[in-house]
Amino acid sequence: MPAEKSFHMTSDEFRRYGRAVIDWIADYYQRVESLPVLSQVEPGQIRASLPSEPPTHGEDFEAMLKDVEELILPGLTHWQSPNFFAFFPGNISGPSILGELLSAGLGVQGMLWATSPACTELETHVLDWLADMLDLAEKFKSTESGGGVIQDSASSSGLCALLTARERATEYASNERGCDGTLVAYASTQTHSSIEKAVRIAGLGERNFRAIEVDEQFAMRPDVLARQIEQDREAGLTPCFVCATVGTTASNALDPLREIGQICREEGIWLHVDAAMCGTAALCPEFRYIQDGLELADSYCFNPHKWMFTNIDCSCLYVANREALINTLSILPEYLRNQATESGAVIDYRDWQIPLGRRFRSLKLWFVIRHYGMEGLRYHVRRHVELAQEFASWVEADDRFEMTAPAPLNLICFRHWGGDEINQRLLDRLNQSGNLYLTHARLNDQLTLRFCVGQIFTEAHHVTRAWEQIQETAAALESGG
Amino acid sequence: MPAEKSFHMTSDEFRRYGRAVIDWIADYYQRVESLPVLSQVEPGQIRASLPSEPPTHGEDFEAMLKDVEELILPGLTHWQSPNFFAFFPGNISGPSILGELLSAGLGVQGMLWATSPACTELETHVLDWLADMLDLAEKFKSTESGGGVIQDSASSSGLCALLTARERATEYASNERGCDGTLVAYASTQTHSSIEKAVRIAGLGERNFRAIEVDEQFAMRPDVLARQIEQDREAGLTPCFVCATVGTTASNALDPLREIGQICREEGIWLHVDAAMCGTAALCPEFRYIQDGLELADSYCFNPHKWMFTNIDCSCLYVANREALINTLSILPEYLRNQATESGAVIDYRDWQIPLGRRFRSLKLWFVIRHYGMEGLRYHVRRHVELAQEFASWVEADDRFEMTAPAPLNLICFRHWGGDEINQRLLDRLNQSGNLYLTHARLNDQLTLRFCVGQIFTEAHHVTRAWEQIQETAAALESGG
Repeated sequence: MPAEKSFHMTSDEFRRYGRAVIDWIADYYQRVESLPVLSQVEPGQIRASLPSEPPTHGEDFEAMLKDVEELILPGLTHWQSPNFFAFFPGNISGPSILGELLSAGLGVQGMLWATSPACTELETHVLDWLADMLDLAEKFKSTESGGGVIQDSASSSGLCALLTARERATEYASNERGCDGTLVAYASTQTHSSIEKAVRIAGLGERNFRAIEVDEQFAMRPDVLARQIEQDREAGLTPCFVCATVGTTASNALDPLREIGQICREEGIWLHVDAAMCGTAALCPEFRYIQDGLELADSYCFNPHKWMFTNIDCSCLYVANREALINTLSILPEYLRNQATESGAVIDYRDWQIPLGRRFRSLKLWFVIRHYGMEGLRYHVRRHVELAQEFASWVEADDRFEMTAPAPLNLICFRHWGGDEINQRLLDRLNQSGNLYLTHARLNDQLTLRFCVGQIFTEAHHVTRAWEQIQETAAALESGG
Repeated sequence: MPAEKSFHMTSDEFRRYGRAVIDWIADYYQRVESLPVLSQVEPGQIRASLPSEPPTHGEDFEAMLKDVEELILPGLTHWQSPNFFAFFPGNISGPSILGELLSAGLGVQGMLWATSPACTELETHVLDWLADMLDLAEKFKSTESGGGVIQDSASSSGLCALLTARERATEYASNERGCDGTLVAYASTQTHSSIEKAVRIAGLGERNFRAIEVDEQFAMRPDVLARQIEQDREAGLTPCFVCATVGTTASNALDPLREIGQICREEGIWLHVDAAMCGTAALCPEFRYIQDGLELADSYCFNPHKWMFTNIDCSCLYVANREALINTLSILPEYLRNQATESGAVIDYRDWQIPLGRRFRSLKLWFVIRHYGMEGLRYHVRRHVELAQEFASWVEADDRFEMTAPAPLNLICFRHWGGDEINQRLLDRLNQSGNLYLTHARLNDQLTLRFCVGQIFTEAHHVTRAWEQIQETAAALESGG
C-alpha cells in the first residue's frame, strides 16, 4: 500500500484495523449467545440512527467499528447464534471466514481462466473432491463429461439447470427464437419457491409449472408425475424439466429420486436434484440413502453455505454434461477472446453462470475441507442429526405435542395439539423472548413449527434449554398466561 | 468459539491465524508490483500441484497459508497490481476488504428484513446516499417511488431490469403464460454481452435482440433506434426494452441518453442505463455530463466493484418504480411469511433480485464511503482520468500510434499504425513480459489496444513506465526483433 497519504488506508493502518476486526469477530462469537437471536428493532429504526448525508471528508476506522457495535449490532438477527433454529442454517466457521478474507484481499476476478487460472482450477479441483466426498456419480466430475461450479445460491443453480433443460428440449431454439409457451416444468408442491421463480424468469410461464402432489410424507408422487407428463404431451405441450428435492424447505421431505429419474430417462426430460440443505449429509455413508437414484439426474446442487461451515455464498452446481450448460450460457464477445479460451484446454466459468464476473469462492471451501477433513465434517453432521433426533424424542414423549412430518435428519417439524392459534402465539412468544429463533411452515394446511439444528456452536445444552422453554411457554399459554 | 476442541478453530486460533492472513494481505500489497501481472502458468498446472484426494483428517492452517503462497499465487492474475491496465478495473481498498471480512464474520443472511433488519436498512440508506453523491434523479431513491439494491454484477442488474420491462410490457402475462416470441429488446452493437445473455435467459430470443448501429464515436444512433422500433411495430412485434450504455466495454462510448430517453418515453419502452464502469465518474460534477438525460430512464446500474474501491461483488441497481420490480420477482411461500413483511412497512430484498439468499454487502460500501468521504473518492477518480489523459497525449504525439476512439475518461483505445498483426504481437509480448497487462477490442473491424487506468496503487510512474515499454516493444517489433 502506498507510503504517502492519499486518502488510502496505509499498510500499517490496514494491519492495525485488520487485527481490530479479527478481534471484534472473535469477541462476537464469545458473546453471541447472550444477544437476542431475532433482532428486536422496529422497521425504520436502524435507518433513523444513520446520518442523512454522506460524509464529505473521510472518517476514522475506529468510528465505523464503533457504529457497527452501537448501531448495526442491534439490527442483526444472529444466524450464528447457537440458539438459531430457524429456516435452514447458514453456518460458517473460522477457516471459512479467513478464506473469504483472503479472497477479498486478493481481489481477483475469475470470469475467464486467464484472469486468474488458480481461481478456476482450484474450483474445478475442489468440486471434484466434493463429488467424491459425497459419493456422486463419476459423470458429475470434470474428469468425465460433467463438472461442478460454485453459484451464489440454489436459486441460481436451479435457474442455470432449467435454462439448459429448456435449450436441450428445443435444440437451442429458445435461445434463438424465444420461448413459445409450450414447455412444461415439474416439481412437487413442496419444492422451494426458487424453482417457480426460475420458471418465470426463463420465460416458461407459471401456468406451465406443474406442482405435483405429494404423499403423506410430503414426497413427490411419481405416479402423479408420470400421469401429468402424459396429459401434457397429449395436450401438445413439451415436458422439459423436473426438479426433485432432497430435503424440502418445509419438512425435509425426500423425493424418490430413482422412480422420478426413471420417468425422466424414459421421457427424455432433464432431471435437476435440489439438495441445497441435505446434500451435506451424504458426507456420511449412513445417510447416503437420501440420494439413491441421483445417478439418473442431469444436474445436482447442494449448498455448503447452509450446512457445511462455509460462508454464504457457496452453492455447488454439478452437471453431467457440461457442453449443454456451456452451449446454453456462452456468448463470446471480442474483448474476452484470448489464447487459452481459443485453445479449448481451459474452463471459463463465465459460461457456467448468469453473471460474467466472479469472486474467488473456492478458497473458503478449500480451507473448510482441509481444516476439518472428512473426519471433522462427518463428526458435526452426525452430531447435528443426533441432537435433532433427541429433540424429536422429547416431542414424541410429550402428549401436548406431535410430530408433523418424518424427520430423517436435522429438521424437526412439530406442533402443539391446540391448533393454529396457540402454535402461532407460541412461535411469536418464543421468538420475541430473544432466547431462541424458530420459524414455521404449513403442512396439511396446519401451522407447523420447525426446529433445525445446524449451527456450529450449538451444543446439547442449547437444544435442551430450547425444549424447556418451548414446554414452559406452551404451559403458560395453555393456562391463559 | 467453543473452548473444547471439536475440530472447530478455537477463538485463540482464529485470532492468531486471522492476524496472519491480515499480515499476508498487507505484505501482498507491498510486493504485488514485483509479480507478473498476467499469470504465466500453463493450463492444468495449478490442478496438477494439488493432492488428488481430499484430506481425511484436518490440517494445520499454516499449511494452507503456505500453499496459498506456493501453489496459488503463481496462478493469479494480479487485478490489484498497479500495472493492471486490462479490461475494466476491479479495484478494492483497505476499508472494503475489512467490510467484507466483517460481513463474513457476522454470517447473516438478509433475504428478508426480519432476517437482519440492519442488512436491509443499511443497504437502502447507503444506496440513497449514493444516489445523492452521483446526483441521480430523486425518483431513484427509496424515499420516492424507487430505490436501490446491491446485485452481484451488472449482468444480474440488467437481467432484473429486462425482466421487469418484459412484465410491464405484457401486464405480467409473460410471468403467467410465458414468452411468445414477440417482445423486442434494443441496445447498441457496442453494448456489453450480458444484455444479449439476458435476452436469451428471459426467453425473448436472440432474434428479437436488435443491435443498433453506432456513430463514428461508437455511440448508439437514436435515429436508427427510432426507425427500428417503428419497423418492429409495423411487423406486429412489441418493443419493450432499451439498454443505453454510459461507457461501453470496448471504448467507453457514451450513448446519448437524452435522445434515447425521449424515444423510450414516447414509445412507452423501458429504458435501462448501464454505467457499470463509468457511473463512478459522476461523483465529480465536471463529469456528470455523461449521464445527461438519465432522469428519463426506468433503471440504472453502476458497479462500485469496478471503479469505486469496493470488493467484487457490488453492483448497484436503481429503479424508478420499485413496485414493478417487486411485482415481477416476488413469490411468497408460507415459510417466508412474517409480521414485518405482511405489514408492508419494510423492504424484503429477496424480491429485488434473482437469488433468495443474500450477503451483507452494504457494510463494505458504507466503509468505503466513510473512509474516503466524497473528497477522497473524487480525488482518485480525477487522478485516474488525469493519468489516462496524459497517456493519451503521448499516444497522440507519437506518429507510430493512433487513438482509435474518443477517450472521455480513463480508458484509452489506441493502435500501432502497422496493422492487426503487429498490434497482436505487441499485445502478446507486453502481456508475456509480466510487467503490465493490457487487453484488446475490435473497433471498425481493427484490432485496438485498450489501456485503462483504475487501480488504487497506480501512480504516474507506472503509467510512464508502461508507455515506455509499449514504445520499446513496438520499436523492437518494427525492426523485426
